[in-house]
Amino acid sequence: MNKRAMIMTMLLAACGLAHAAGENGAREQTIFRAGAAPSSNGPAANFDGKVHVDPLFPAGAQGSFSAATVNFEPGSRSAWHTHPAGQYLIVTKGTGWTQAEGGPVEELHAGDAVWCPPGVKHWHGATPTTAMSHIALTATRDGKNVEWLEKVSAQQYRR
Amino acid sequence: MNKRAMIMTMLLAACGLAHAAGENGAREQTIFRAGAAPSSNGPAANFDGKVHVDPLFPAGAQGSFSAATVNFEPGSRSAWHTHPAGQYLIVTKGTGWTQAEGGPVEELHAGDAVWCPPGVKHWHGATPTTAMSHIALTATRDGKNVEWLEKVSAQQYRR
Repeated sequence: MNKRAMIMTMLLAACGLAHAAGENGAREQTIFRAGAAPSSNGPAANFDGKVHVDPLFPAGAQGSFSAATVNFEPGSRSAWHTHPAGQYLIVTKGTGWTQAEGGPVEELHAGDAVWCPPGVKHWHGATPTTAMSHIALTATRDGKNVEWLEKVSAQQYRR
Repeated sequence: MNKRAMIMTMLLAACGLAHAAGENGAREQTIFRAGAAPSSNGPAANFDGKVHVDPLFPAGAQGSFSAATVNFEPGSRSAWHTHPAGQYLIVTKGTGWTQAEGGPVEELHAGDAVWCPPGVKHWHGATPTTAMSHIALTATRDGKNVEWLEKVSAQQYRR
């Protein structure tokens, strides 16, 4: 683990503790400040093109969703993957694409939301010519929230 | 129930069915399109000032969170209330305020997120001079996701 990743893990752990404390009877809210945790780049193993992730909040005891904003530059997209406990996407900016295996490539605009059920193989990203940002709300099961698969080929990445 | 509210309820019910179907073994994603459900105004009983709500997705079997964007004009705010199963807020635009009972009024900016634990009495809204929009992710327990209480007085609405 590099230094940046370690700092991020520590920050998220600290957030997680505050978070949990808020749920164990404390009569207060927990505020996760923008910029408190660093952005990270979508790793080349799991993404094509330039992608960066801004954490919003970590998984807590309640609901076990974590949230992050994911920013896709034009042409960038995730690899195929599944979520063991499902994932919501809320598009906040731009125009992008998503596809569940065997289904059509669907175009997404700001204000659209997507529910990807547990175990459904999908990908999501920008279009070849437009950037897209979405909030990802990813549920956790047994400490795991994603299983990465093969890249989306150039042939698959079209509509 | 007026006609508009009835249409909205029907739309949300339809979304809910599609949503549930996606979770019962279907190998596909559910897309909730921006504009598919109408905006509604924050009712005067529970809000001061001009507030409108844009639904994102209804509560599903998974996680039982619903999501909506809530838009507060300057000076507008919710009444005091609690959430039986908790609520996340993700600020998407502008600057606003929130307070948990007994705590300070906290200022919120775009990119900030808030976790309000189950049963914590809070309010949220714009500042007197700036608008604020946030996504509200509200968990449901026994079919209920909010209990409304008294209005936030002019004396409480300051920082």
